[in-house]
Amino acid sequence: MQMSGNCYKVRLVARQLGIPIALKEYPEHGGLTRQATFLAKNPNGRVPMLEFDDGRCLVESGAIIFHLAEGSRLIPTESWDRAQMLQWMFFEQYSHEPYVAVARFWLGYASKEELEAKRALIPEWHAKGNAALAVMETHLARHDWFAGNRYSLADVALYAYTHCADEGGFDLSAYPALSAWLIRVAAQPGHIPLSETW
Amino acid sequence: MQMSGNCYKVRLVARQLGIPIALKEYPEHGGLTRQATFLAKNPNGRVPMLEFDDGRCLVESGAIIFHLAEGSRLIPTESWDRAQMLQWMFFEQYSHEPYVAVARFWLGYASKEELEAKRALIPEWHAKGNAALAVMETHLARHDWFAGNRYSLADVALYAYTHCADEGGFDLSAYPALSAWLIRVAAQPGHIPLSETW
Repeated sequence: MQMSGNCYKVRLVARQLGIPIALKEYPEHGGLTRQATFLAKNPNGRVPMLEFDDGRCLVESGAIIFHLAEGSRLIPTESWDRAQMLQWMFFEQYSHEPYVAVARFWLGYASKEELEAKRALIPEWHAKGNAALAVMETHLARHDWFAGNRYSLADVALYAYTHCADEGGFDLSAYPALSAWLIRVAAQPGHIPLSETW
Repeated sequence: MQMSGNCYKVRLVARQLGIPIALKEYPEHGGLTRQATFLAKNPNGRVPMLEFDDGRCLVESGAIIFHLAEGSRLIPTESWDRAQMLQWMFFEQYSHEPYVAVARFWLGYASKEELEAKRALIPEWHAKGNAALAVMETHLARHDWFAGNRYSLADVALYAYTHCADEGGFDLSAYPALSAWLIRVAAQPGHIPLSETW
């Protein structure tokens, strides 16, 4: 699902680590992930899903990029740094994505009629999404990266939906340290933009 | 926060691994986690928080239990099993806790007035919470445990809010494989109930 930040995390890590994966597109409006053939592989009906030649399937973007990156430079070797990396990855999925990514989807990718049905939720998305961005800003005012003083999966996970948060109505210029971090992430070797087709 | 399933995960893992931690109680209605002294340690204003004698703080229940359990029997040694453990831990925080735990809090621990303000959300909590329980049931119909064919952090993470889901209006008798798994988890050496004070 090209527009999905969760799928982008997997493409970005695979590209930066030189891991060959083939992409299968699930359009955001196609409903393919809720059909029986997909549900047999992931009963939770979501992408990204990493499918191996032998039939094994792994879901949840955080678990997929952790698996792809095990033993690589994208996971700190020190236990405490690894714990902080996971802290920010869980923070992203619980306190950031449900507001920042959800606002982007409904405001940027849904039809006018679909958005109307959700309009009452927009203030909460923006309040909680901005709270998450403020937590990031607090950290980035004192640190270049989220874990282990270097670029890691924590930065990948948080970059995915933060760099395009303007599509959900968030004003990133209110977060100067965060804005500088976005530039640092995009300057990493092997970085690809969300829009890059494979 | 004794009633919090996220805090329970940390108590359970610490007890099962014999890790000495001291508890500080943050009552669920006290607002202590949104005060400046707490926010200086965790800008996201949530418990559990693991605080070390040297001042380091770690938040997010998934990251805390991963850190406490590194190198122990609660984390599979094989990379694929570890990936599946993390998959279920991320699933719990994204697709399960926001509905199963949230329904339990508002239906079981909030005042009548507070619940009234949330009443319109109850059908969505129950629909999405039951969808998450059904995903667990599908897995448990064919597996005893969530990762690596043995009890791991994935089981801890999912047990925390599943075993008390009835407090949120969920009928667990509709999930026989899940109900059998709850009994297996509670029979693990060193298991403690959520209500056990330290």
